[in-house]
Amino acid sequence: MSDSLVQRLTAELERIVLIDPHSHINPHAAASKDLGDILGYHYYTELAHSAGLPREKIEEPGITAREKVRRLVPYLAHIENTAQYAWLMEMCRVFFDFQEPTLTEKNWETLFDAAGKKMAQPDWEAQVLKKSGLEAVFLTNDFDDPLTGFDTAKYIPCLRTDDLVFHLTKPEVRQRLTKATGIEPTTAAATVDAIGKLFEHFTSKGARACAISLPPNFEPLAIDQFDAEPLFGRLGKREDWCDDDTKTLRSFVFWTLAKFCADYKLPFDLMIGVNRRVYESGVFQGQDLYDGRCSLIQYRRLFNAFPQVQFPVSVLSHGVNQELVSYSWIFPNVITSGHWWYSNIPVFIEADCRARLEAVPQTKQLGYYSDMYKLEFGLPKFAMYRRVLAKVLAENFVIDRGWKEEQAVALGKKILRDNVERIFFQR
Amino acid sequence: MSDSLVQRLTAELERIVLIDPHSHINPHAAASKDLGDILGYHYYTELAHSAGLPREKIEEPGITAREKVRRLVPYLAHIENTAQYAWLMEMCRVFFDFQEPTLTEKNWETLFDAAGKKMAQPDWEAQVLKKSGLEAVFLTNDFDDPLTGFDTAKYIPCLRTDDLVFHLTKPEVRQRLTKATGIEPTTAAATVDAIGKLFEHFTSKGARACAISLPPNFEPLAIDQFDAEPLFGRLGKREDWCDDDTKTLRSFVFWTLAKFCADYKLPFDLMIGVNRRVYESGVFQGQDLYDGRCSLIQYRRLFNAFPQVQFPVSVLSHGVNQELVSYSWIFPNVITSGHWWYSNIPVFIEADCRARLEAVPQTKQLGYYSDMYKLEFGLPKFAMYRRVLAKVLAENFVIDRGWKEEQAVALGKKILRDNVERIFFQR
Amino acid sequence: MSDSLVQRLTAELERIVLIDPHSHINPHAAASKDLGDILGYHYYTELAHSAGLPREKIEEPGITAREKVRRLVPYLAHIENTAQYAWLMEMCRVFFDFQEPTLTEKNWETLFDAAGKKMAQPDWEAQVLKKSGLEAVFLTNDFDDPLTGFDTAKYIPCLRTDDLVFHLTKPEVRQRLTKATGIEPTTAAATVDAIGKLFEHFTSKGARACAISLPPNFEPLAIDQFDAEPLFGRLGKREDWCDDDTKTLRSFVFWTLAKFCADYKLPFDLMIGVNRRVYESGVFQGQDLYDGRCSLIQYRRLFNAFPQVQFPVSVLSHGVNQELVSYSWIFPNVITSGHWWYSNIPVFIEADCRARLEAVPQTKQLGYYSDMYKLEFGLPKFAMYRRVLAKVLAENFVIDRGWKEEQAVALGKKILRDNVERIFFQR
Repeated sequence: MSDSLVQRLTAELERIVLIDPHSHINPHAAASKDLGDILGYHYYTELAHSAGLPREKIEEPGITAREKVRRLVPYLAHIENTAQYAWLMEMCRVFFDFQEPTLTEKNWETLFDAAGKKMAQPDWEAQVLKKSGLEAVFLTNDFDDPLTGFDTAKYIPCLRTDDLVFHLTKPEVRQRLTKATGIEPTTAAATVDAIGKLFEHFTSKGARACAISLPPNFEPLAIDQFDAEPLFGRLGKREDWCDDDTKTLRSFVFWTLAKFCADYKLPFDLMIGVNRRVYESGVFQGQDLYDGRCSLIQYRRLFNAFPQVQFPVSVLSHGVNQELVSYSWIFPNVITSGHWWYSNIPVFIEADCRARLEAVPQTKQLGYYSDMYKLEFGLPKFAMYRRVLAKVLAENFVIDRGWKEEQAVALGKKILRDNVERIFFQR
Repeated sequence: MSDSLVQRLTAELERIVLIDPHSHINPHAAASKDLGDILGYHYYTELAHSAGLPREKIEEPGITAREKVRRLVPYLAHIENTAQYAWLMEMCRVFFDFQEPTLTEKNWETLFDAAGKKMAQPDWEAQVLKKSGLEAVFLTNDFDDPLTGFDTAKYIPCLRTDDLVFHLTKPEVRQRLTKATGIEPTTAAATVDAIGKLFEHFTSKGARACAISLPPNFEPLAIDQFDAEPLFGRLGKREDWCDDDTKTLRSFVFWTLAKFCADYKLPFDLMIGVNRRVYESGVFQGQDLYDGRCSLIQYRRLFNAFPQVQFPVSVLSHGVNQELVSYSWIFPNVITSGHWWYSNIPVFIEADCRARLEAVPQTKQLGYYSDMYKLEFGLPKFAMYRRVLAKVLAENFVIDRGWKEEQAVALGKKILRDNVERIFFQR
Repeated sequence: MSDSLVQRLTAELERIVLIDPHSHINPHAAASKDLGDILGYHYYTELAHSAGLPREKIEEPGITAREKVRRLVPYLAHIENTAQYAWLMEMCRVFFDFQEPTLTEKNWETLFDAAGKKMAQPDWEAQVLKKSGLEAVFLTNDFDDPLTGFDTAKYIPCLRTDDLVFHLTKPEVRQRLTKATGIEPTTAAATVDAIGKLFEHFTSKGARACAISLPPNFEPLAIDQFDAEPLFGRLGKREDWCDDDTKTLRSFVFWTLAKFCADYKLPFDLMIGVNRRVYESGVFQGQDLYDGRCSLIQYRRLFNAFPQVQFPVSVLSHGVNQELVSYSWIFPNVITSGHWWYSNIPVFIEADCRARLEAVPQTKQLGYYSDMYKLEFGLPKFAMYRRVLAKVLAENFVIDRGWKEEQAVALGKKILRDNVERIFFQR
């Protein structure tokens, strides 16, 4: 039926050069240096572990990249069905000219060597960006990142604030804050000042967003300096903290961040719904899960209190996507943002993307971000998204609603590229 | 593949003349009088507002309809992707012979004038009903509506009870009740009598349903006159009301309504899941949202206690649709009803409609209602539904299950028309 | 488009001989003896009841099977749209050569007689198994089942533990336990011993799984003998039980079961999410419903504490399927299992199956089980599943990902057959 239509739309969408609005790239080592960096991505280690490979084998200290890949490869047979495996094969095909249908114990070492050679080329990073159609990539920087030594026009800083909101009771976090700002957060007032310094620093380095990931039960309240002040006297003494105090402190820091986002005109990326360390014996970055019972109603006070702040919202659970659609349709400052983590597989992207396209103003949708740790992943991840997007545009716009193909492509471009520019760069 | 099949089924479904089982039509001004009435529908004002148009511009007192449309039109470009925009264009094409693909700053005024002329025709209301294939339309009347001055066979009264259940503590609501019934609700017993009077009045005027919209956390309990009586002594004194008392009072009124529905053989429409005034700075009727964490288990006592009452149930959240399917499949008195508000877009209708058709007795499904405020919206809304329904019938019945097309059309007719007659008119 | 592809894949999947990993078959009367056994399945009685047939008519004591069918048939017209009706017609076609498109008041008696003759054939049970492509079927045995008098290689025992966990406070359950094991559960220690005896007995008879169905709010805690001991002194005195005590006792028994599953290397089937007796006036087995607000986070302690136990998990609510996918993707000991009850209709199977195939290692998925009470239902239920599976494999693997058809069929075989062997028989 619409297969060639989908292909035509996909081809058009592939021509759009992108700015990736959220990743975990290390700008000092953006591209992979060997296949171990690729297969070391938590999606592969956690799936191999889930399929039976002991964590100790994967994370044995001192093993070489080659040895790590050797151990992982036999378990790839168990995950050939997954979307993540499809990313892997697409990367291998496009970047390393790998033509085999699967990666096996017989062929992996050839690939390892071929990939290694490619990655050793001095312009590898630039090659990857070019082949991936990526012009710039947002980072996720620790609050005490000096943001020096890289091109902040290509790798755009973003202030990550999880530690400040959720771990300020930890001495090491307070020390890092002191070191980064020269202000000791011993009072609520000082903490506000310190956070202000961070915003000053980050925006001076070209940061374009503030970001945070939040557990499913988080509900920010309007806690100001006054309300929070009494807590700071007890910051040193751990035993005193009850749940309510912890909640108050977290809301205070969170609310302070939102205020600075308003002052500095920074969008505040909310990544809602993750429970950390649910599976404590899991591999690195493969321990987090979630409780789907989460609602955006928890953010009503925030969305009402900061009409001048743009909130690109990602939800971890597919079940919350309809709320995201509805809240973005009603609140001018709520923006749908990408397809996050456990929702980043075609089945959920397809339904979630279609819902957003059918009900949220087209100017308020950030189609996709890679969330990648290594640059090579941008290509297969955006490719997966573009194919799903092309399918939705074909079936639900060109066929169901009689749209012209150019119109559908223009809508795709808007959510893939134009909105990133307008929302983060106020162009 | 099945495109022409879908078209054939759609064409057959379009021939069925309908009774719209739920709307907010004002029977004294059922049709629009200008394009401002059309674009004043909250779907357009709230989406334009969400896309950046300040509320003050939209709701400035004293502006003309023409001026309001002039201000809204530039923002329509941002919502061309939405299902609501598709309704608008379908209305303009069918009713006003508008042939442009989009409504723009260049062409809106021509449309405004053309539409104005059409709407000024003395039989405009009848034209709209005829073109829309609508024979009769249910209303949603305030409990103190005199229900006079209109044809109650065409505009069928329905007793809306939100104010009674949720706002009886407000003096103005009690005064309205006193005025409507001649009974002052100063005791539980008097309140029961007053409510009885309302049912008497409404059914004498041809009312065919009682209706209410409910917040996601509402859980009705069997509170009788005795249990509630102590609360009435404090009805004047606001400061005394704790949450439990409020819940008791609400359950009492709700339970009383259910009893009268039993006595008067009125179906009780439950519209479950809306939180009012979540976005307080939103435009008129564009402030309500929801918490998807809601379950029909909250209504188990009600469904068990009133087997003789039919409960057409609408759920606001797509996530509750499976429960609605399961509860209707088990409880003889639970009926699936339409696709409400935030779930009234093709992506959710398609999945929800398919689930109902695959598991709920066909006699217990009310396919669709318009929920409209102005008569012109019946046409594009029912058209949207019929296309989705035709697609589901084509793919999941004719193709997947080998049904004959006539059989599929007959199923469509049952849920679109026959069930409305049987459930509300006991034909 | 892909219709003939779907048909080819379906045909290949139909050639795979299966082991049904979960049913409620009575091995002493596995097949039906008349059409009353077929139409007596709760899906038909509850749907007919929901469509208007009074329970008293269906469950009148002393009526013959013929009379029961006579009463049910007129109500089948109301449920022709349901998936369950499609099972019925497929069974009648395949097993009884019934060629009519529907079962009506005019033709049912002919079918009743024809079916009766077939079912009276001495090898009927074997015929059904053969036609259904079933090699073996898992049972769900009460804990005090002697497990004698049947072929435990064909009908594989499974220890059902609902009564132990949820009804140990009932004297009759404790008496049954005493009778089955010779140990009176008067102390926590004795209860552990008694449960140990059950595992000994069941595994000696070839049991391959332990199973339990759980309400949506169940959250197992690590309660050991010591913690639970104080409760046992009060087991006789009902009035003393508070909610917390009940929870502690349930967790204790549940945790003890998990320990024995570890000791005896039995997979522990968790069927999560059912509320019993929600509709108390419903027909037999047609009274249970659910609260969709349920999360696998409730099982984090269990999954962490028993890495050596395999947990095939079924979820009642479609809304929890994404969590099931994510938890199976992360936890090595969590396995996706079938499509249960209210989620066992094509619309939910399709989405849930696709999500699992896109993100869970293929070795960790149990595609389907029949859940049947009578052997004839295996055929249409597995046929429904295979068609949906073939559709997903065709659209999302062969078409979207360019897989070869053999590869897609191999994936289907893995989740339909191979994984049942590996997970339950450690082959």
